[in-house]
Amino acid sequence: MTVNKVIYDTDIGVDDAMALLMLVFSPKVDLVGITTVFGNIPVEIATRNALYVKDYFNIAAPVAEGAGTPLHLASKAAPVHVHGANGLGDIPLPDVIHAKPHELPAHRFIIETVRANPHEISIVAVGRMTNLALALREDPEIASLVKEVIIMGGAFGYHGHSGNVTPVAEANIIGDPHAADEMFAAAWPIVVLGLDVTQECVMTTAYMADIRDRGGKGGQFLWDVTRFYEDFYRKAVGIDGVFGHDSSAVAYLLDPTLYEVRHGPIRVVTEGIAIGQTIQMPNTRRFPAAAEAFAGRPEATVCIEVDAPRFLTLFADIIVNASQIDN
Amino acid sequence: MTVNKVIYDTDIGVDDAMALLMLVFSPKVDLVGITTVFGNIPVEIATRNALYVKDYFNIAAPVAEGAGTPLHLASKAAPVHVHGANGLGDIPLPDVIHAKPHELPAHRFIIETVRANPHEISIVAVGRMTNLALALREDPEIASLVKEVIIMGGAFGYHGHSGNVTPVAEANIIGDPHAADEMFAAAWPIVVLGLDVTQECVMTTAYMADIRDRGGKGGQFLWDVTRFYEDFYRKAVGIDGVFGHDSSAVAYLLDPTLYEVRHGPIRVVTEGIAIGQTIQMPNTRRFPAAAEAFAGRPEATVCIEVDAPRFLTLFADIIVNASQIDN
Repeated sequence: MTVNKVIYDTDIGVDDAMALLMLVFSPKVDLVGITTVFGNIPVEIATRNALYVKDYFNIAAPVAEGAGTPLHLASKAAPVHVHGANGLGDIPLPDVIHAKPHELPAHRFIIETVRANPHEISIVAVGRMTNLALALREDPEIASLVKEVIIMGGAFGYHGHSGNVTPVAEANIIGDPHAADEMFAAAWPIVVLGLDVTQECVMTTAYMADIRDRGGKGGQFLWDVTRFYEDFYRKAVGIDGVFGHDSSAVAYLLDPTLYEVRHGPIRVVTEGIAIGQTIQMPNTRRFPAAAEAFAGRPEATVCIEVDAPRFLTLFADIIVNASQIDN
Repeated sequence: MTVNKVIYDTDIGVDDAMALLMLVFSPKVDLVGITTVFGNIPVEIATRNALYVKDYFNIAAPVAEGAGTPLHLASKAAPVHVHGANGLGDIPLPDVIHAKPHELPAHRFIIETVRANPHEISIVAVGRMTNLALALREDPEIASLVKEVIIMGGAFGYHGHSGNVTPVAEANIIGDPHAADEMFAAAWPIVVLGLDVTQECVMTTAYMADIRDRGGKGGQFLWDVTRFYEDFYRKAVGIDGVFGHDSSAVAYLLDPTLYEVRHGPIRVVTEGIAIGQTIQMPNTRRFPAAAEAFAGRPEATVCIEVDAPRFLTLFADIIVNASQIDN
């Protein structure tokens, strides 16, 4: 069995926590680091949450704190109506957390870990892309030293999914569009899971209840943290359940056959009414009128279709199987 | 039977000519004017083509010449590789054309015709939106005096269709994005048929051959003008046939039940790498982060799904039935 060495870059958040448990519980993953970033909550809360989950599930990987603000944009209020004020659906958290953050800032941790494990590290990034952009600025060579980068972010219009913050912009990208555009300029192997596929994967109340009932400590934790999040989705989006946003990036890592993909370079709009939009020039049809905007950009892989039932089975199996071994 | 009084605003072009024959041959349409605009070809050639088709098919409607350049952008070379240098697939055209253009410029013709027929005129616009923007600038009240405006233009991501000039921009809109954005600001009833639906309607070689064989003079004309266009689509897009772009706007006029629609205000991106993109704020999910950009914009109706087989039947029936009556 191939074991993937993974750095998980996260603004941990409810769906981030769901994805983190996939990484922790999958026998195919060696989680070598968790890096935090602002987004769903301020970075200090993201770090606190990562350390809490590290304590609670005895996670060996260190937690390195990352960027607290976008590269150029002004900071915005965190979406407390989505993830709760504490980022974990406002479940009670302990006063004392034993784990301590790593001494390196996130982008430096990424650089050193990638350099220490050349061609072995998969970076799974599910927050603003600020840490990745800072790492690339400081050490552009890491682009040729990572194994792959898998991100949750963006939207490309498939199934009518084009945005969740504006009609054309997804939260992780519009949260720091300059960082995302820099990251897509790097010549590293990158796979993008945007709303096109993540919003096709609805984890219903019944599905989460089943994981709670069969998933031991992990299943109960996931049930608890998703109550607030589910309530948001019911009221604001009109679905009975939650989208499998960040866990989709882990699902691709573990089983890329769940997805159909499209290849081509990507740009991010950094100004105007389309700010935060991801645009891919598909290899299947190059547009001369847009050639200049995409000149020199490397290829990216965008997931455009997902086998949602198999995604849901994969997620549930990882949580449930772990509970049978560990608890 | 309801008869629709129609002004057809066109950069006539191959698929424009196809749509024009639908209007001319449908018993449900009273074509009261053809207005021309630059786009597929320079406006002088658009006017010449409209006058030629008027001669050839004994069309009563006058032809009024419109805008030759975008409102603000610099003029670009016409896409002669798509429609041919003469805009009609380079079929031989007569040296002498008998019909003469109307004395009014297109935007003035639109204003006077709408004012003379309050609440009765459907404007079917399938080129750059420059004439409509100029008419609105000169007489904003026409917005409340038209029956409806039906346009072919834009793209909203359905079925992965987002652009045909850039990855996110459709030709009619990117050809004059400022005019389109002004037009979407007018409070008139507007229906938009973009690539989402027009690229779902492929008129194959066999389909066009059948219309040629059963469609008399009109069928033969459509076969002749589409040969060059079909060749472009085969080489550049990889389909065996042509898209039913402009005829989709006429199809909506004649039978809106062919389409599923989405409601909400529209903006057009007028600068940057997403220039020419159409963005709709869907009524089903309002995004506070984008509220300012759409503030005060009226509702528009965007077609997102089409019953393509019924569209193809509608088009063929109109051409074939007309040949049985007239020829």
